[in-house]
Amino acid sequence: MQPVVAIVVAAGSGSRLGGEVPKALRELAGRPLVSHSLEHLAAGGVDRVVLVIAAGLAADFAPAIAGSPIPTSWVAGGAERQDSVLAGLAAIAADPELSGCRFVLVHDAARALVPPEVVDRVVQALVAGAVAAIPVVPVVDTIREVTPSGSATVDRSRLRVVQTPQGFRREVLVNGHRLVRESGLQVTDDAAVIEALGEPVTLVEGSREALKVTEPLDLLFAEAIVRSRP
Amino acid sequence: MQPVVAIVVAAGSGSRLGGEVPKALRELAGRPLVSHSLEHLAAGGVDRVVLVIAAGLAADFAPAIAGSPIPTSWVAGGAERQDSVLAGLAAIAADPELSGCRFVLVHDAARALVPPEVVDRVVQALVAGAVAAIPVVPVVDTIREVTPSGSATVDRSRLRVVQTPQGFRREVLVNGHRLVRESGLQVTDDAAVIEALGEPVTLVEGSREALKVTEPLDLLFAEAIVRSRP
Repeated sequence: MQPVVAIVVAAGSGSRLGGEVPKALRELAGRPLVSHSLEHLAAGGVDRVVLVIAAGLAADFAPAIAGSPIPTSWVAGGAERQDSVLAGLAAIAADPELSGCRFVLVHDAARALVPPEVVDRVVQALVAGAVAAIPVVPVVDTIREVTPSGSATVDRSRLRVVQTPQGFRREVLVNGHRLVRESGLQVTDDAAVIEALGEPVTLVEGSREALKVTEPLDLLFAEAIVRSRP
Repeated sequence: MQPVVAIVVAAGSGSRLGGEVPKALRELAGRPLVSHSLEHLAAGGVDRVVLVIAAGLAADFAPAIAGSPIPTSWVAGGAERQDSVLAGLAAIAADPELSGCRFVLVHDAARALVPPEVVDRVVQALVAGAVAAIPVVPVVDTIREVTPSGSATVDRSRLRVVQTPQGFRREVLVNGHRLVRESGLQVTDDAAVIEALGEPVTLVEGSREALKVTEPLDLLFAEAIVRSRP
């Protein structure tokens, strides 16, 4: 089987978490968030990682990269998330060991506790022929939509919370990001990039434990999850 | 000022939490969820509570009611959430001390850790003239909507997560629930009931700490919040 490569986006500043440390290096149970992510991706079937970090921070990330359970290289990211994914895709294309790979996963380093079975579901969906596969969980809260005249209840049964890693046929992700860059479209995840191409997105079952650490409360929740695991 | 009365809906079975104990009696930091709710409502300005419980469980709830920091009576609820709210409204109408009250809050007992300032914001919005006031928080995750042909990204900037307590002018809530019962409409919260009447709903700032305890993971998160509070 071909290697499964993951682009791990770790270029966020973490300003909403407070403090000076880049978000992916914030400690959770004594280790940086990114180290948890690398471990869970490896356990879920990822073979190689291209880590996208903010320019100038290579030395800060070096221990996490050295401690990765799978071969992990790094590249400097850009101002926006999609610039970072593009940098990761360029690094894959430039690496003779990776440039033949068919499948690319894109993962937010801050989703540190994604269960390996979620990663595996994404990979298996690609192996089974999906163009794009993303993990989702149901929306459990009541949701309202703000409208020009006020707000209205939305039928939550049709809504899904989107998580990462999101998996793609590599050429489709490359084409999608090119299109998005040329069109100036604003996107919040890579599935939206694929959507811009008109390609279908396959939904797989995610996990609430794959929460994204953004605010201090998320870090508190992530610590509680770590403590609860055997 | 008139008393602020809260209907606290505590009739849920808690089957998704596992175990035999009704959800509102599940322990969080050594006390039932409902006791946390009563304490936070009282600290936020609620004067009286009508607790809606499942038929036959009065003895189980008696210690929590006896320990409430504010006068708390109980009434048996119905099969659906809206039946329980109607039972609470009927109990208010039948109580000479409460039947003159203008404002009613409706709260889910399982939102045990709602900060008092959120309760206060709801009450203050009613005092300032709102017909209905509900706490909301932004949606931080990417959201997709399942469509007949697949799924599509939704603009999350327009979406809000709805919480409780939700506050209402009493007669409007009564009329709304009558309409919903007669029309057979399915609703997930009381703001949707008001909406059916065409009345405006005022949004106030909620708090992520007002999470609803539904699954074991929510209880884990709630415990982490309790530990983090001074």
